[in-house]
Order: sequence, then C-alpha cells, then structure tokens
Amino acid sequence: MWKGRFKEQTAELLQQYSESISFDWRLWRHDIEGSIAHSAALEAAGLLSADERASIVAGLREIGGEIERGDFQFKRELEDIHMNIESELTRRIGDPGAKLHTARSRNDQVALDLRLYLRAESDAIVERLAAIQRELVALGSRHSEVIIPGYTHLQRAQPVYFAHHLLAYVEMFQRDVERVVDCRKRINVLPLGSGAIAGSTILLDRELVAQLLDFPAITQNSMDAVSDRDFAVELLSALALVAMHLSRLSEDVILWASSEFKFITISDAFTTGSSLMPQKKNPDVAELTRGKAGRVYGNLVSLLTTLKGLPMTYNRDMQEDKEPVFDSIDTIKAALAVFAAMLGGIRANPENCAAAVGDPNLLATDLADYLVNHGVPFRKAHEVIGKAVALCAERRCELTELSLADYQALSPAFEADLFEMLTVENSMAARRAIGAPSPQNVAFQLNRWSSRLGNEN
Amino acid sequence: MWKGRFKEQTAELLQQYSESISFDWRLWRHDIEGSIAHSAALEAAGLLSADERASIVAGLREIGGEIERGDFQFKRELEDIHMNIESELTRRIGDPGAKLHTARSRNDQVALDLRLYLRAESDAIVERLAAIQRELVALGSRHSEVIIPGYTHLQRAQPVYFAHHLLAYVEMFQRDVERVVDCRKRINVLPLGSGAIAGSTILLDRELVAQLLDFPAITQNSMDAVSDRDFAVELLSALALVAMHLSRLSEDVILWASSEFKFITISDAFTTGSSLMPQKKNPDVAELTRGKAGRVYGNLVSLLTTLKGLPMTYNRDMQEDKEPVFDSIDTIKAALAVFAAMLGGIRANPENCAAAVGDPNLLATDLADYLVNHGVPFRKAHEVIGKAVALCAERRCELTELSLADYQALSPAFEADLFEMLTVENSMAARRAIGAPSPQNVAFQLNRWSSRLGNEN
Amino acid sequence: MWKGRFKEQTAELLQQYSESISFDWRLWRHDIEGSIAHSAALEAAGLLSADERASIVAGLREIGGEIERGDFQFKRELEDIHMNIESELTRRIGDPGAKLHTARSRNDQVALDLRLYLRAESDAIVERLAAIQRELVALGSRHSEVIIPGYTHLQRAQPVYFAHHLLAYVEMFQRDVERVVDCRKRINVLPLGSGAIAGSTILLDRELVAQLLDFPAITQNSMDAVSDRDFAVELLSALALVAMHLSRLSEDVILWASSEFKFITISDAFTTGSSLMPQKKNPDVAELTRGKAGRVYGNLVSLLTTLKGLPMTYNRDMQEDKEPVFDSIDTIKAALAVFAAMLGGIRANPENCAAAVGDPNLLATDLADYLVNHGVPFRKAHEVIGKAVALCAERRCELTELSLADYQALSPAFEADLFEMLTVENSMAARRAIGAPSPQNVAFQLNRWSSRLGNEN
Amino acid sequence: MWKGRFKEQTAELLQQYSESISFDWRLWRHDIEGSIAHSAALEAAGLLSADERASIVAGLREIGGEIERGDFQFKRELEDIHMNIESELTRRIGDPGAKLHTARSRNDQVALDLRLYLRAESDAIVERLAAIQRELVALGSRHSEVIIPGYTHLQRAQPVYFAHHLLAYVEMFQRDVERVVDCRKRINVLPLGSGAIAGSTILLDRELVAQLLDFPAITQNSMDAVSDRDFAVELLSALALVAMHLSRLSEDVILWASSEFKFITISDAFTTGSSLMPQKKNPDVAELTRGKAGRVYGNLVSLLTTLKGLPMTYNRDMQEDKEPVFDSIDTIKAALAVFAAMLGGIRANPENCAAAVGDPNLLATDLADYLVNHGVPFRKAHEVIGKAVALCAERRCELTELSLADYQALSPAFEADLFEMLTVENSMAARRAIGAPSPQNVAFQLNRWSSRLGNEN
Repeated sequence: MWKGRFKEQTAELLQQYSESISFDWRLWRHDIEGSIAHSAALEAAGLLSADERASIVAGLREIGGEIERGDFQFKRELEDIHMNIESELTRRIGDPGAKLHTARSRNDQVALDLRLYLRAESDAIVERLAAIQRELVALGSRHSEVIIPGYTHLQRAQPVYFAHHLLAYVEMFQRDVERVVDCRKRINVLPLGSGAIAGSTILLDRELVAQLLDFPAITQNSMDAVSDRDFAVELLSALALVAMHLSRLSEDVILWASSEFKFITISDAFTTGSSLMPQKKNPDVAELTRGKAGRVYGNLVSLLTTLKGLPMTYNRDMQEDKEPVFDSIDTIKAALAVFAAMLGGIRANPENCAAAVGDPNLLATDLADYLVNHGVPFRKAHEVIGKAVALCAERRCELTELSLADYQALSPAFEADLFEMLTVENSMAARRAIGAPSPQNVAFQLNRWSSRLGNEN
Repeated sequence: MWKGRFKEQTAELLQQYSESISFDWRLWRHDIEGSIAHSAALEAAGLLSADERASIVAGLREIGGEIERGDFQFKRELEDIHMNIESELTRRIGDPGAKLHTARSRNDQVALDLRLYLRAESDAIVERLAAIQRELVALGSRHSEVIIPGYTHLQRAQPVYFAHHLLAYVEMFQRDVERVVDCRKRINVLPLGSGAIAGSTILLDRELVAQLLDFPAITQNSMDAVSDRDFAVELLSALALVAMHLSRLSEDVILWASSEFKFITISDAFTTGSSLMPQKKNPDVAELTRGKAGRVYGNLVSLLTTLKGLPMTYNRDMQEDKEPVFDSIDTIKAALAVFAAMLGGIRANPENCAAAVGDPNLLATDLADYLVNHGVPFRKAHEVIGKAVALCAERRCELTELSLADYQALSPAFEADLFEMLTVENSMAARRAIGAPSPQNVAFQLNRWSSRLGNEN
Repeated sequence: MWKGRFKEQTAELLQQYSESISFDWRLWRHDIEGSIAHSAALEAAGLLSADERASIVAGLREIGGEIERGDFQFKRELEDIHMNIESELTRRIGDPGAKLHTARSRNDQVALDLRLYLRAESDAIVERLAAIQRELVALGSRHSEVIIPGYTHLQRAQPVYFAHHLLAYVEMFQRDVERVVDCRKRINVLPLGSGAIAGSTILLDRELVAQLLDFPAITQNSMDAVSDRDFAVELLSALALVAMHLSRLSEDVILWASSEFKFITISDAFTTGSSLMPQKKNPDVAELTRGKAGRVYGNLVSLLTTLKGLPMTYNRDMQEDKEPVFDSIDTIKAALAVFAAMLGGIRANPENCAAAVGDPNLLATDLADYLVNHGVPFRKAHEVIGKAVALCAERRCELTELSLADYQALSPAFEADLFEMLTVENSMAARRAIGAPSPQNVAFQLNRWSSRLGNEN
Repeated sequence: MWKGRFKEQTAELLQQYSESISFDWRLWRHDIEGSIAHSAALEAAGLLSADERASIVAGLREIGGEIERGDFQFKRELEDIHMNIESELTRRIGDPGAKLHTARSRNDQVALDLRLYLRAESDAIVERLAAIQRELVALGSRHSEVIIPGYTHLQRAQPVYFAHHLLAYVEMFQRDVERVVDCRKRINVLPLGSGAIAGSTILLDRELVAQLLDFPAITQNSMDAVSDRDFAVELLSALALVAMHLSRLSEDVILWASSEFKFITISDAFTTGSSLMPQKKNPDVAELTRGKAGRVYGNLVSLLTTLKGLPMTYNRDMQEDKEPVFDSIDTIKAALAVFAAMLGGIRANPENCAAAVGDPNLLATDLADYLVNHGVPFRKAHEVIGKAVALCAERRCELTELSLADYQALSPAFEADLFEMLTVENSMAARRAIGAPSPQNVAFQLNRWSSRLGNEN
C-alpha cells in the first residue's frame, strides 16, 4: 500500500512485530462507519460519482457483514484494520476503492475509529455502572433493617445500616458515571479531515462528516488532532477509579464473607471450591476483582508512559494505545457485570450482624455526646469516656455494665437516663443530619436511588 | 487528645512515623476557615454562645496570622494541623476551644480541608495553563510567517506554520483546563458533618456550613464522605496529562534547539552551561520538565495504589494522600510558570526553518493530490509518487529536479503546470479545511486565541 | 561557574526550578569523599603538588565538619552540592580549589556520589531487614505453642502454627536481603574518570581512585557510565518488593487486631486513638505501612518514566533521580524500624486463637487424606468429604458431630479410628515434609533463624 | 472437581470471569513435567504402584503430544491448565489419574509451573540479550573509524567513536543479563510439596522431586511457598530495565535516522511507509520498541498493585500474575529479536557523521585542558574558553577561526602549538583512561566483546 518508494520487501520479522490487525480488528465497525461518512464528503467534493460512492458503501457493508459473521479473512501483511478493509474493498470494486483514501491518512482515520469506539463503550460502561448501583440498592432494600458495625481502621467505630454502607458505593459509582460522561465530551470530537498532520490540499467538508457521524464538535488543529490521545488516557483514569472502588467493595465482601465476620453469605453459584480442601467456599469474584485493579492501573501507566516525551505529531509508538484501552474496558465491563450478578445472590446474616453491632463500645461516642448535651465541653467528654472504656478493659466488662456510680465518679454530669439513652436504636434515630444514617435518611436514600435507577420494588 | 483509654505513652518512634504536621501544615488556612464555619453551626445549634463563638473566631484568626508570619510553633506530638490548631486555641481561650470539635471528627475535617485546598489550587492551575497558552500564542504571533517541516515518526512529513505547531499545544492545554474544571465540580462538595463515619447524634445545620464555605453541594452519605479521595486522584490524573503535554512540548523544544535542527534559540537566561565543557548551552528547562513527568505519573500511581483494596471507611493509609497531591500541584505550577517564561525568550531562526522546509520531499503528498485532481485514483497516485521518490533516491536528486518527461513516464496525467504548483506557498494556501494550516486558518486561530486569552497585540 | 559564554544572567525562575541543593545536600559526605580521592589522582598525575592537595583535603574536611554540625550555608544560586562545596573550597584556599575539577565533570561526579550513597544505604537496609526478621522470630518463639487457622482466600483453610505464619515473612525478608545484596554488586562500580561523556584528554589513574574508594570494579564505557541509573532503578525495585511484603504483613496484623479475629493485641505504645470516638485503638503502624506501598511503588514508576526514551547520554531529566531514591530509602528504613518495634510489643491471645482453630472444617483435608490412606483415590476422597461438609451445613453441625454411620454412608472406607485421628494435634504432627508446619519443623526453623540472626534466647 | 459441598451450579458468568485456561494453557509443558515428577514421589511413598505411575506418565505424555500438535481441546469449565490436564488424564486412565492430586494443591502446583516456565524463559531472554549485543558490536566493527558527536542534553558535547556509543548499550544489556541471572537463582527453588498452605499429612520426598526437576533448592516454609510471587515481580523489574534501555537506543536510532542528523540509514526491510505521504520511510521498529516500554512498565505496576496488601496466603487475586508476565516476556523477546535484526541492516553515513563531528565547539573542553596543561587552574581555563566561545558567537565564526592573538588576549598561556593540537584525531588519541574512547580503547572493547559474545570476524 505504501511500497512505491521501497526496494526491499518488508522483513517478515517486522511484519509480525508491527502488525496491529490481531487486536485492532475490533474497530472494524467504526472503520466502516467512518469510511462511509468520508465517502459522502468525497462525493460532495466531486471526487466520487454517486455510483462510485454507492459501490463503496455497498462493498463496505458487505465486508462488515462478513466480519460480523466471522467469515472475513484478516491478513497480517496488510498490517491493520484500515488496510485490510480498504484493500479488500478495492479488490472487490476496483477504482472507487482506490479513491477512498483520498484526502485521508491512517493518522486521522485511526483517531476517528478510536473515538467512535470509545464513545460507544463509554455508554456501555455507564449502563453497567447503573446496573451495579441497582443491585447495591436492591441488596440494601432486601435487608433494610440490618445494622452492622461501621469500621474505621478496621476497628469497630459506630453502628450503621448495612444499606447505608452499600449506599456509599452507590455514591462512588455515581461519580464514576459523571467522570465517564465528562470524558465522553472530549471523546466526541471529529478528527477526520486532519490528514497525516496538515489536512489536505484537497478540500473536504468536515462539517458534513461531523453531522453524518453525529459529532457535535470538530478538532481545530490538524497536528493536535492526529497526536491527541488524551481522551483515551482520561478514560483509562476514570476506569482506574472504577477499579479502585470495586477493589474496596471486594475487600468488604471478602471480610464480610469470612468465618470471623460472617455478615453475609454468597450463593454457591458465585463462589468456588478448592482442588485440595473439601470444605472451602471462596469468594473468588471479589478476589479476582480486587486483583484486577492491578491490570487497570497498569494499563493507565502503560499509555501514559508511551506518550511521555513523544515529539509532535504521530509516532508509531502510539499504536500501543489500543491494547491497554481494550483491556481496561473489557475488564471493567466484565467485573461490573459479574459483581452485579453476585450481589444479587448475597444475603445478609441478621443474627451475626446483630451480635456484632451489640458491642457496646460502638456507642462510646454517643456517651460523649450525652455529656456534651449536659454541658460538658467535647474534649473533656471525650476524655471521660476514654477513661470509662479503660475501666471496662481493666474490669473485663462492657460500657453497659458500669454502674451509674461508676459513671458519676468519672463525671458528675451523668444522670440516670444514661442507660435508656444507650441503645443502638437511639443512636441511629439521632443521626438525622444530611447524609447520616438515621432510619429515615437511609430509607429516603434507598427510595431516591431506586427511582433514579429504575429499580423494581 | 485521644489518650483517655490508653495507659502507655505513644512510642516516640510511632510519633515520628505517624505525624503529618511536617507536611499538612500547608492546610492551615483551610483548617481555620473550616473551623470558623463549623463554629457557626455549633452556635446555631445552641452548643456555643455568641461570645464563645466570637472568642473561637478571634483565636483562630490570631493563630492564622501567626502561621502566616512564620511565628507559630508546630508540635510534632500533636500529630497534625487539626490538633495543632485546636490544642493551641484551647490553651489560649479555654472551654470554648474544647467545644469546637463537637460533632466533628478529623475524618470529615481533613476531607474538608483537602477539598478547600484543592478548590483553590485548581483555580491557580487553570490560570497558569492560560498563561502558557498566552505565551504559545505570542510566540506564534511573533513568527507568524515562519514555516517548518511538520514531522511524523520524526521524519519530515508536510510543511506547517511554526505557529500551527504551537497552536496544537494551545489546544492540549485547553483540554487540560476543561478537565481541571470538570474535576473541580467534584471537589466542590461539602463533607463536613459526616463525623467519623456516621454523622453525629448532635444535629448540625450542614446547609449553613455549605453556604458559609461557598459549597454548592453537600455529600449524601457519611461513610462515603470520609473515605472518598476520588477528587484527589482525579486531579492527579488531570495533572498527569498536563505533565505529558509538557513532556512533548519539551521534546520539541529540545529538538528544535539542537545543532541539527536549530529552528529556535533559547535566551541565555533560560539555559545553563556545563561545569566541564565551556561551549555548552543546554535547554535545561525543557529537559527538567520532560523528566518531571516521572514524578507526576509516580504520584498518581502512589495514590491509586494506596487506595487499592482498602475496606470502608477511613483507614490511616489515607494519610498518604497529601504528599503526592502537594508534589504534583507544586511541580505542575512551577513547570507551567518557568516554561511560559522561557517561551517568552525563544526566537525562531527563520533561515534555518526556511532551509529545512525547502526539502521538496515535503510536497510529495501534494504531487499525489495533483494526480487525484487529474483523475488518478489516490492509491495509484500514491504509488506513482512513491516511484518518483525512489527515482530521486537513485539519482541522488530532488523531486523538483525530475523533468516533466520523467514524471510523464510515471503517469501520463502529469502536465506542464506541475512545477508551478509544486511550491510550499501553494501547498499552504490549499490547506483550507477546518483545522488545517492555510495562512488564513492559522491567522484566524492566532486571533481567536489571542482574544480569548486576552493576549496583548 | 559555567558562565563564560553567557551574556544574560540566569533567570531567577530557572534557578529556583533547576536547583538541586535543597535535596542533594544529603550527598555531601560522599561528594567530599569522592573529591579527596580525585585529588589523589590529580596529584599522582602531577596536576597538583603535594601541598596543593593537602590544602584541598584539609579544606574539604573543614567544610564537611561544618556541614555535619549544621554550620554550613548552602546557596541556591550554586545549584547543587558539587558546586556549593567546590565554590566554597576555592573561596577559602584559592587556586588549588580551582584545579580540583580538572578532568572531571559533574556528570561522573554525581554518578560517583550517588553510588557511594546507595552503597552505604544498601548496607543499612540489610541491617534493618535483619532486625525485623529477628523480631518476627522472637514473636514466634514467645508463642511457639499457639496454633491459628491458616487462610487462603481469607477463608479458613488448615491449622498452622502462629510462628509458622510469621516465619513465612522471615523468608520473604531474606529474599529482600538477597536482592539488595545482588543490587549492591552493580552499585559498587567506579564511574569517576568518565568525564562528561568521553573521559578526558588529561590522563588520570582510575585504578588508584577505585582503590581509595574501595570499589572492586570500574566502569568500562564512559558514555554508559554517565547515563547509567540502572542501579538506582534496581534498588527501587527491590524496595518495592520490601514494601509489598510489609503491606501484606500489615494486612495480617490489621486483621488479627480486629474485634472479629482478636488473635493479637498491640501495645498501647504502638496504637493511636480517635479524636472523636473514645473507645478506638487503631493499628496505625500497620495501616500507614500498608499505605506507604503507594509511595514506594510510585517512586519506582517515577524513575522508570523519567529514564524512558532519553537519548544518550546525560540529560538534565536525570536530576529527577534523587528524590524518589531518597524517599524510598527513608520510607523503607522507617517502616522496618517502627514495624520491628511494634512487633516487640505484640502478644497473641491464646484463647481466641484456640477457639478459631477449633473449627473442625480445618481438618476436612485430613479426612480426605485419611481416605487416601485407606485406598481411596484422592479425587474421590475429596468428593466424599465435600459431601460430608454439605451434610453438616444442612444439619447445621460440625464435621466432628457426624456419626461413624454418617461417614460410612458416604464411603465404606471409614473406620472407627476416624475420630481419634481427627484432632489438630494429629494434623500438625503429620505435617513433617520440608517446609510444612509440624511442631518439629517449626521449632527447627525458629532455631535455625535465631542462630542465623543472632537472636537472644 | 471441587463440587462436593456445592448445591448450585457455578454461574456461567463466573466461569467466564474466573477461567484462566485461555492464557495459562501456555504452562502445559511445565504442568506435565511437574506432574511426572510428583508421580515419582507418590510411587516412592507407596501411594502409586509402578504400573499406575507408568500409566500416568504415558497418559501425560500423550496429552502433551496432542497439545503440542494443537489437537487437544481445552475446556473453559475446567478452569485452568491443571484441571484440564488432570481431568482428561483421569478420563483416559481412570483411578491412577484420580490419585495424581494426592498431597498436592493447585496452589503449589501453579507455583511450580510458573517457576519452571520462568526458568526456561530467563534463559531464552539471556540468549536474546547476547544476540543484540552481538549485533551492536558487529555494527560498531563495521564502522570502526566513524566518529560522531557525543551529546549531553542533546547538545553536541565531545567527539566519540560511533562504536563507543554502541558499546555503551552493550554494557547496559550486559547488566540486564546479570540481573536476569540473579533473578533466576530465586526462581530456581522447588515449591511443590507445600500443599495448599500447610504441606500435607501425607509425607512425600521433596528432595526426590527437586532432583528430578533439577532444582538446587527447596522452599522452607509452606505458607510462603504458595503466596510468593517475588520472582515474577523481580523478573518484570529486570525486563522493565531492558525496555528502558531499548527505549533509549530507539530514541538514538530515531534521531540518527532523521533528515536533520542523517548519521545512519536503515534498510528498507526494517522501515515502513505512509498510507498518505509517498516519500515517507519511517523507523517503525525503533518507535514501536520505544512505545512498548509503556506496556512493560505497566505490567510491573500491574503485578505489584495486585500483590499489595494481600493477606496470607494464596488469594485468587494472584491468578492475575500470569498475563503481565507472559506479555512482558513476549514483548521483550520480540523487541530484542527484531531490533537485533534491524541493527544488522543499518549502515552509518560517514560523510554526514564527519560533517557533524567537524564542529569545532566539540573541542572546547580540549582547549581548556590545553590551558590546564599550561598551568592554568581548570576553573579559570573553563572561563577563558567560555569567553572564546562567546567571542565566536559574536563574530559568527568558529573556534578554529580565532587568531592566536585573539586567544592570547584571553589568556597569555596560549602558544602557537594550539592549532595543531586542536583536531578531532588528537582529541580521541588522548582519551586513553579506562573506558574513554581512544582508538586503542575502542578497538580493545570491540575485541573483548567480540570474543566474549562469539562474534564472527
């Protein structure tokens, strides 16, 4: 295709090394879509007749159908998806095919294909994020009464609704949605018409192409357009945050499913056993998903590294953009899907949760708040309760087992109503500020998200 | 501060290891600002009298003044900026100080401080991005007639205006602005009132606090609010892209300033010499900036890694969020400032640029376009010109030195007007599509950006 | 120092941006050591008289003393540690100082300084690795009878000695020692004498310098010598593995210290409390250490990124090599030290461990082995015991609570001795292969490591 | 295989998500090799008869043959290579197959397979490193007289032999060899016999297995043995350095092949053209290789991230170890091979090199050395020559064009022999210290490496 000036054949070793068809075949749909739009501009410019364009469109559709059915034979010696399709088209329809690449370079063509692909995948990821949010809300709703210890430092901190904990992840995934949507704005810009680097001496109507491919904006600098992969890096960054969120959710699921916590049971369908130990039932989905943060982070590093220090404009290094992008998208889509399905099969174990949340230490802060409400400055109240906790540790008893006299010895502000106040129910009921886990707030949030996400009730 | 329940003293080694005051003192302004707003909510809830609040506000302002003047003594044993300020406040004003931490945890406090800090820094970075854009446009405008070879694969590709090349970077930095602005939306949410993890049994008015601190939104889940560092990761990602852009611009500057290219001269003020080789004049700003991509990428990896697999909610690991954020912000701000200043002292060397762009191979694509305009399908035209290039290589001559007969032997479509057409001026004039470097387009873009950025003309 | 050919002053902004004295002052000792050796070569070559060299050595020692005492004033305008020392030396002793940089460049000088520094730090890290190994062995020895569940997938798998679990980390840290020692071989090569890039036209005796500085080897290519930072990357890689090991140990400590596991108690001296929740006692050392894996990984990425794609030889980008190296070394040394100290204050909680290890499911594999010993192929045995576990889940009982009849219904190979066999003690006693946790093996390993590491008994 | 205790079927989605056969099939040879050795230990322990073992060995060899010929049908529902082979073996030979997994877990099995695989690949990589070294030496030898400018900061610094520049890379690759060899020591340790985590109650002879598989050492802690992936991380780190070296060599090749440098010509067979611009001949091998540093760095980050913070021992996250390892090994092997082949087709362009090295500024340091040899302290000499350079810049002339009077005005130490001295030949001849590029030194190094590497002469 570009061999006019070359005397020697391309080395077989180089062909193997530099081909991209083994992975960029995935862009076939977008390549064809882009070529059809490009051919419209060529026709509008008088460079193709209506008949020529019709034969191009028909030929491309035919090839597309074959690829879809798995009947198309890709050739490594044709390097990439662009050349594979163009070359086969020309073989089939002759001269009109040979005209298709007029005023176009693979540099702007691949930028177009990648943008079309990522635009579609962004939408798919947004859908899967909504699906996992839906399952989190559903799981919380199925167990809306269950209270568990909330943890900081993996130490029991304060009681929270199980649903409140799950809703924290719904918030995270919502930010992921927003980031992907923001990124999509920057994906959704037409690069075609930038040529190799400097547009073309043949004038085409870029606005027509933008309209046909549904791009609301057009790149404004041809050199930038062919060397820009920001949108891919930005998406990889957004996906790294999704992976991070999934890794945290995984950690929680793994802890909750352990013998020591036992807050949840995962269905058999989403656990696996051991080849050696007959009793094992492992939370593999959560482990694998936690582990996959590695590859999603690694893909981001990979692309950032590749782009570092490249001179303008297109350099062949940039062919390395596709595999990390494909891998992160595949990984995140699969992880969201399987995790959502697993969530559907999780049930909480109410007795174990209740036993854990019965730990009176979880109410220590409430005791300090009690003193504050009785006029003690918070720092002093905190110190008083700290001493009560230490006294319990010494006596090997619980905060609920100290007597009123014990408490009053620590602070005269304690009164007899202390013990009535000191219940998980009271603790939850009082937490009414925006975002805090009072029963009303949690119910409100479950409802808010259910309607927003379209959960069935 | 939290010692009530502890019998042993904290180990000196642990104090050294876990203190953050050596770096989080930078948040002092935001910590004070947040505490002043929090005290308003405490007063509104009847937990502070007006006098108590007044003494808190005055005390905090006094401490702030001392920190600003460098007169405040931070103490490592007080761990962090929050405890250093609160403890000193209480030492000075007594009980009202001890009441300040009511219904607040360091978990929501540090989240607030970091968001206030990053909100301000986002704005500062946006300004510096505009400043470097301004210098790029100014440099392009100073040399608006200069044409250089545009490169792909670091091989000469097609002629472009020097200004067009610089404007590619203006586009990149504009996307950086957009990303930082998008990120700022997610920074700009109030976390205070989330407590350690579950809000508080003491009800405060979060909307009041949001209003005082100018937050348009409030976090909706207390657990998420204290464990969310997405906004910091997102900013680090956006800065990684800025660093990548700077590394590419640096590479171009380094190439252009080499003896082999000599397209530009950097002023003495922004170059350095060698301790050994007396003739050296090195483009250190560009080299250092290219190198600093490393630390900005590394900081992103650092924070992503730290957050991977953490269970809900706050874990002490998260104290590691600040240093990478501070470092990337400092690095990017410094790099943008020094690079902008250096651009101000760069001048193009018109003769060298003209000599380089005189390479007739740069017009090979135009020759192919010529054939297309004479009815030859592009693929064939490409092959014909490829053969012309090969012929030149064989004869060790240039495309402009072949005869019309030579050309016609390759394709009968060539006509005598061929040689008139074959000039850089014609080549540039024809590149009129949106984003392509025709003289009119480049002038238009320089003007567009000049007015947008407020460049003086 | 290099201003002969420059007309304009260096911009203040550039000075701030490019100075390294704010961090490379740490190399002062090595810079002086190297200059003293270099001056010996200059004297040997007749370029310094004995008196001149004596005044250089005395001057450098004087400056070194002042730096050590904190009395030396570093100047940013002198850029780096090399120029700060050389310039001050010349100010004090005149011409001999001005001769010191003969046949030397900062390029080979900084390579030397960094290698001397890293050689010393490698040794320090090896010592700290041994110290934490010592504490792990001591902790295991203090609780040599304690058995806990070993986990895979955070699910209880098989019983192991607490000491066996700790000894796994001793093995890991031993590999870390080996890697640092291997890296040290490649650090320990003399680069001085390579000049800026091409040695010097003035011939010096590199073997003399190597001998004085105790280098067993000398670089063989001057261009490689000034652009090589492999040894720094290699050390950062080795430290990344140390950080990874520490992060895993941290995770185990955090789990074991949780209310749900309660296998260990950490001393008050190595835990911290909460500013809000009076009952909290958090395993901060472990959390911070786990979190610090982020910065150690990030530093590795930082340096690798900086070096990517640099042309030969020295480029100013490489000044970015020092901060990540300093930071990873400081971080790892501090983490090893504080973790070792914390281990010294950990005690196991034998009752909780015993309760956990009493879970009969831990012996399920032993039951399968029982069948194997009675002639059942392992795959069938595994399936039989799997069914026994399922039966227990259905009946909500334990494996020890099934009757012989139950077992025989699953496989006729079961006999009455089954229940005697089914104890943790028998399980441990049988695990006698190399590396397995029989009591004898674990005692042997504790002893082996104790003597090797010089633990007191 | 592990379904005894499960009631529900594994979800199809989980099967897809958690299978590894699509990539770990590559370990088939090592899995079979390990199973054959394991069966020997089972026979020695009386758990298999000689006949049973013979049928196992024959069955495994048969399966191995089918896999090698591409005739074996892998099944996703059997998860991984281990289960695929064991299950098919048992289908074919019955009970003996069902006995094969006795006293073994997939945890120690996969650790064994990975070590066997990496041991073989380490050797293959060492060979390819030697091959590229050989080509570098050959290229240097083919052009042993060519001198080029050496660069620092991409500014011309001092003249060096082209071969000297290439030999710098030979040194780098030699360190890569050493690192891989050091890593191989830690790969080369037998993990089999560690079971899932705690060995087995059935005693096997691990030393026999080690001997059969040619392992000089045996893991000493069963928990460490199944959770250790250090050796894989270490190899990925070593490969990251290889990738970094290749990226620097690529940068040099790309620069040298540019129109501006033109120091080398790459054969047509190892360049590619443009789909649009007929004149282009691009150094794609070097660009792609530079770009591939991204994926090799990314793979390292990926595995480090995955391992961060995992509790003991095996967690399913660790299944993510294989793909980054496979990818980095494949990438580095391919890059070394294609780069070596390309080097074989590179020729230097002596006239262009000579023109560039004729730049008199390259001898500025020699002029300073001249003054040193005439008694001027180096710092003063440096300043004098700096002024001479500035004078030339002012007069737009070269250092060789100043008169003796000009020089003597700058320093009375200049004498008439100055101009004779000032030649590239003299400059090179004087650079005789170890590692410096005198003609004798470079010839010596070319010879040394030629014999060491077995180059033909």
